[in-house]
Amino acid sequence: MNIVALAGGVGGAKLAHGLAQSLEPEELTIIVNTGDDFEHMGLYICPDLDTVCYTLAGLANPETGWGRAGETWNFMENLEKLGGASWFRLGDKDMATHLERTRRLKEGESLSQITEDFCAAWGIKHKVLPMSDLPVRTMVNTDEGELAFQEYFVHRRCEPRVKGFRFDGVYAAGPASGAKEALDLADAVIICPSNPWVSIDPILRVVKEINKPVVAISPIIGGTAVKGPAAKMYAEMGIEPSALAVASHYRNIASGFVLDNMDRELDAGIKNIIMKTLVTDTLMKTAEDRVRLAKDVLHFIGSL
Amino acid sequence: MNIVALAGGVGGAKLAHGLAQSLEPEELTIIVNTGDDFEHMGLYICPDLDTVCYTLAGLANPETGWGRAGETWNFMENLEKLGGASWFRLGDKDMATHLERTRRLKEGESLSQITEDFCAAWGIKHKVLPMSDLPVRTMVNTDEGELAFQEYFVHRRCEPRVKGFRFDGVYAAGPASGAKEALDLADAVIICPSNPWVSIDPILRVVKEINKPVVAISPIIGGTAVKGPAAKMYAEMGIEPSALAVASHYRNIASGFVLDNMDRELDAGIKNIIMKTLVTDTLMKTAEDRVRLAKDVLHFIGSL
Repeated sequence: MNIVALAGGVGGAKLAHGLAQSLEPEELTIIVNTGDDFEHMGLYICPDLDTVCYTLAGLANPETGWGRAGETWNFMENLEKLGGASWFRLGDKDMATHLERTRRLKEGESLSQITEDFCAAWGIKHKVLPMSDLPVRTMVNTDEGELAFQEYFVHRRCEPRVKGFRFDGVYAAGPASGAKEALDLADAVIICPSNPWVSIDPILRVVKEINKPVVAISPIIGGTAVKGPAAKMYAEMGIEPSALAVASHYRNIASGFVLDNMDRELDAGIKNIIMKTLVTDTLMKTAEDRVRLAKDVLHFIGSL
Repeated sequence: MNIVALAGGVGGAKLAHGLAQSLEPEELTIIVNTGDDFEHMGLYICPDLDTVCYTLAGLANPETGWGRAGETWNFMENLEKLGGASWFRLGDKDMATHLERTRRLKEGESLSQITEDFCAAWGIKHKVLPMSDLPVRTMVNTDEGELAFQEYFVHRRCEPRVKGFRFDGVYAAGPASGAKEALDLADAVIICPSNPWVSIDPILRVVKEINKPVVAISPIIGGTAVKGPAAKMYAEMGIEPSALAVASHYRNIASGFVLDNMDRELDAGIKNIIMKTLVTDTLMKTAEDRVRLAKDVLHFIGSL
């Protein structure tokens, strides 16, 4: 089976990790959101790409889901003493990723080439691609005006009320080198349980057309997001946050939908929107959960 | 007594530290070589300025004389795993200095303003100035061609044979904001025991005129440099490395010279070049040595 997975941050990374343990390297390509990339202190930072790579490599902090395991914060502590910006936490190990990537980007290398080399260095065997080699910037329209994504997400801790989103640069940005080829070869596309608004929509907007069966996994369980502001965003835009809302979000693209056992009463309604559904345990607490959900989803795809 | 000290790296920093413990903040300005500043991985790095500041702040690594005490190397380890440049060691704590300075320089702030703020953050009460706010780059002419200073010094470990030096940018660069004023107010100028060729000469070239009594301390004791390539440089340029060679180096500018007890047989010869000399213990092994030498030098200046 040949799979392309679309992933954002922590939730997407976990399922991608489960898929990587269930599929051979040549069977899986993970296309990662780069809409929340940003430049900070002269560093080009790709939060979702790093979360996915660190997770696949077994380097991720198991407590937070993002950042590095066994991280130290000597850079950050000393930066704060100098009065530097402290709202975005940069660990000492993590810094190597940002500084070396920035250096190579400035020398004209593409983000996909750099990502490929970093994956090789980290021992990641499955293909990980940024959605685009060109910048796309997720802008959050809020009651306090438009904010760059990390400004909204980290600096303002998702406090401003969301009114909508804009993906700056999306018209000019094409899929990264290799992404189109992977989609052409894919038997199916999996939309990982990432934020539909700010993790998956940017990828879908860049990729534009997917002429393959698409299966989406709800990142919302029991009306709340497992992690991050997805539920808050739905609510602020006047949509009751639920697996049903997510299914509706993907109604024009997905032909299969995976929801949690906790939401089984929504199954009939979702079936009205998307033909096929799988009701299973979707919460990934342990390493085993990741593999189990991946296998469930792959089996579901096989049955479509 | 109002003193301006000219300093390079480790040796200069040690005497500057001794002077700072012997003079009130308003009595001492330290002007530091920036000729070995360089850009590396997008960071603007000022090795001598950082060594002087870390030393004055009590943050310096006591083993090496440069870098930070209790430094960690998680950035460096991870950079090496990614195949990044490893010849210039960047510690995790030290990184905060480079990244924040680079960020502020890119926003158009001057190196002297940034240095002033960093000194305040580090609790340094005496004034520390870069020699210039404009770039001056020490270039080393060697038997393998011209090399940028850090390329010669760190990357090539001073292996190529030195034929001469060039200070790129020196004609356009003026003294940093405050340097001229400090020199105008000074009763005397102390040339710290730093490398005459690559630490002090760049400062003298930028400052141009010093119409004050100048006292120099030999960085060469018993024919060898306490630290660094000064003796090697003299030898490769056909000059026997000695306190006498250093005195000759400063013959047109210094009116007082401090040499080590070990070199007392050179005293008569040095007196022929520079009128007044002080023979004393100049090797600074301990914190007390720094203060003792500083007090000796200040007393010597008082006697001139």
